[in-house]
Amino acid sequence: MNIAIAQSGGPTCAINSSLVGAFSEALKTPGIDAVFGSINGIEGIIKNNLIDLKNFIRTNDDMELLKQTPSTVLGSCRYKLPDPDTDSTVYEQIMNCLRKHDIHALLYIGGNDSMDTVLKLSDYAQKHNEDVRIIGIPKTIDNDLCVTDHTPGFGSAAKYVATTVQEIVCDSSVYSVESVTIIEIMGRHAGWLTASTCVIRTNGVSAPHLIYLPEGNFSTAQFIEDVKREQAKHKALVIAVSEGIELDDDSCRSGMVDNFGHKYLSGVGKQLENLVRDKFGCKVRSIELNVMQRCSSHICSKTDIDEAFEIGAAGVRAALAGETGKTMVFKRISDVPYIIDIVSVPASETANKEKMFPKEWITPDGTNVNDNALRYFLPLIQGENVLRMRNGMPEHFKIKEEVLK
Amino acid sequence: MNIAIAQSGGPTCAINSSLVGAFSEALKTPGIDAVFGSINGIEGIIKNNLIDLKNFIRTNDDMELLKQTPSTVLGSCRYKLPDPDTDSTVYEQIMNCLRKHDIHALLYIGGNDSMDTVLKLSDYAQKHNEDVRIIGIPKTIDNDLCVTDHTPGFGSAAKYVATTVQEIVCDSSVYSVESVTIIEIMGRHAGWLTASTCVIRTNGVSAPHLIYLPEGNFSTAQFIEDVKREQAKHKALVIAVSEGIELDDDSCRSGMVDNFGHKYLSGVGKQLENLVRDKFGCKVRSIELNVMQRCSSHICSKTDIDEAFEIGAAGVRAALAGETGKTMVFKRISDVPYIIDIVSVPASETANKEKMFPKEWITPDGTNVNDNALRYFLPLIQGENVLRMRNGMPEHFKIKEEVLK
Repeated sequence: MNIAIAQSGGPTCAINSSLVGAFSEALKTPGIDAVFGSINGIEGIIKNNLIDLKNFIRTNDDMELLKQTPSTVLGSCRYKLPDPDTDSTVYEQIMNCLRKHDIHALLYIGGNDSMDTVLKLSDYAQKHNEDVRIIGIPKTIDNDLCVTDHTPGFGSAAKYVATTVQEIVCDSSVYSVESVTIIEIMGRHAGWLTASTCVIRTNGVSAPHLIYLPEGNFSTAQFIEDVKREQAKHKALVIAVSEGIELDDDSCRSGMVDNFGHKYLSGVGKQLENLVRDKFGCKVRSIELNVMQRCSSHICSKTDIDEAFEIGAAGVRAALAGETGKTMVFKRISDVPYIIDIVSVPASETANKEKMFPKEWITPDGTNVNDNALRYFLPLIQGENVLRMRNGMPEHFKIKEEVLK
Repeated sequence: MNIAIAQSGGPTCAINSSLVGAFSEALKTPGIDAVFGSINGIEGIIKNNLIDLKNFIRTNDDMELLKQTPSTVLGSCRYKLPDPDTDSTVYEQIMNCLRKHDIHALLYIGGNDSMDTVLKLSDYAQKHNEDVRIIGIPKTIDNDLCVTDHTPGFGSAAKYVATTVQEIVCDSSVYSVESVTIIEIMGRHAGWLTASTCVIRTNGVSAPHLIYLPEGNFSTAQFIEDVKREQAKHKALVIAVSEGIELDDDSCRSGMVDNFGHKYLSGVGKQLENLVRDKFGCKVRSIELNVMQRCSSHICSKTDIDEAFEIGAAGVRAALAGETGKTMVFKRISDVPYIIDIVSVPASETANKEKMFPKEWITPDGTNVNDNALRYFLPLIQGENVLRMRNGMPEHFKIKEEVLK
């Protein structure tokens, strides 16, 4: 029998490590012949666009290289399967492709939308007596998947963000004038990544002096008061803000139109920068960490990369044990020493749901997070991979563009 | 006798390494007693705000830590000395402070503006028979200082930019749809840092497909043609653009006003993003590498950090040999193997001047750079420091905020 692996949703630093984990587990499993990679997530299976991974990942060196390569080596997609009762065409295409290649297990690496695919496909397969198991392997830098303690990809994003915010704190404090630095961090609905900036406290850094999450109730008036209060204490004020907070003041949000007549969509960081400049007149800068948050594998968390590998391998074992319609998840046994277990749960518990940052970890005044958050985050960013470098830059594993058409 | 060290201008990853180089050279030089650090550049000497560095940098470990700490540990300033013939007050304050502390050499680490300070101070001292030597140690991520082959701080910035652009290339290519990614890189007048993105070619990456420098003649109409041409070849187009290019089309540049009535100053990256969206309607994103370019010491170039140390030490030796009004510079002896020499030149050759990226290293169509650039850049980004980590993040050296008031 053969198995297939696909990657879906937004890129992370760990999604390729899960691919390698699943691939190498399959290699050492008697009875598994080919391991197929699906190009661009489920789209590859729909279009019968599969590659035999053994032809591309040939050596242990290749696997190590792939583990330090960010993003999805097989490409990705944002494809939502239709309701099979309304439209089953695409399900038939998928099952045809799987049957044709003798594929009896599909590992789908993705976020909560991808778990919807896992759920729908496994339900369809069971209903139609198709001999294929569908297993979801989580990944997302947003850390917003339910049930699991955390998601692969999050730890590396958090390590990049913490490292970078620490450096920005150094950068922001060089001049003798008062300044405000606003750092906008990813997370449309959940504030996990923004909250994780609290870890720099453990290194004796007082920043971020203010942290705003989508889970809090952001008020522009209160924000101005917060800045005033903290500025009295800190010459170089540093603020971490989630891209997902909603400004309650229309004057910040809208109204900008460029010369093409397009409404200009600026991020909250830029909006708050303008607000601070207007109200305080001091030196102010906003910084978007942008896609670097999800692709800076040069400063990935070894814990994250290793766990991503393990959960990929565990997914293969679950499929072979006959499980289907499951999401593999981490269960935290202990913070110190940090111990996790990997178990499977029904994909219905993770699909289309979001796990928010706990309100009880936000300080009463809503401008920071408490030590429960610190204890939760710290283990996830530990350890560094020794990178293979080439010409002074990290080396990446590549599959030729022609293959990934 | 005593010496003093000050840091000036914008932060880099290497400026503290030059401080350590000068400090440790002074420690082993018979006849030098105290090594003073001036808080916030020349302002510290004007205000008599000096610290005895031996009280703060106590061990070899401290020195190693300081070498991996970005930004200016002593703070910085942007202070231009007046013409001494018009206003000599501040010069008298400076000379008083130096005399009072028995300081006979001042090492000033900074960019081309700081070399103006070196020049003016040494001229004044010589004219007034003050027994003090003034030596400039270059630093700037812009690499735009004259005479020197390159500036300390540039190599680390280039290594960060190359590493990050490589990762963004991975990130940008995951979906099957056409996309344009525009990366805005620092350099108001000189395009060195933007041009340095060409190094990723040596790792088999086709990007950046287009590179625009302030030294080229940017034309919006030509830009649109360039994008059209390259998009036919590359599904995920990646463009590196210097913040300093001037758009010739007013419709891109101006007109945005926020609800406070302020004119909104967006960077060229955002302007070109809007232009591409307007003309092509495809998926487009602009990314500003922002201050991370100058403070990401976690991925600094070992070559850069080591050279910054050496040029700091050489500055002390030059001062002790009686030189004054000089800037220490690198002379490149060979690309492969990479060999440099450190010599001193009159500060007048570096003060208030800018070295532009050579036009003959730009390709004839103005959209990329040639292999001469590659040969120049590659040695500067080689080698990695093994970082001392703490709690999963790089450890930084700190002087208490109270001291740096």
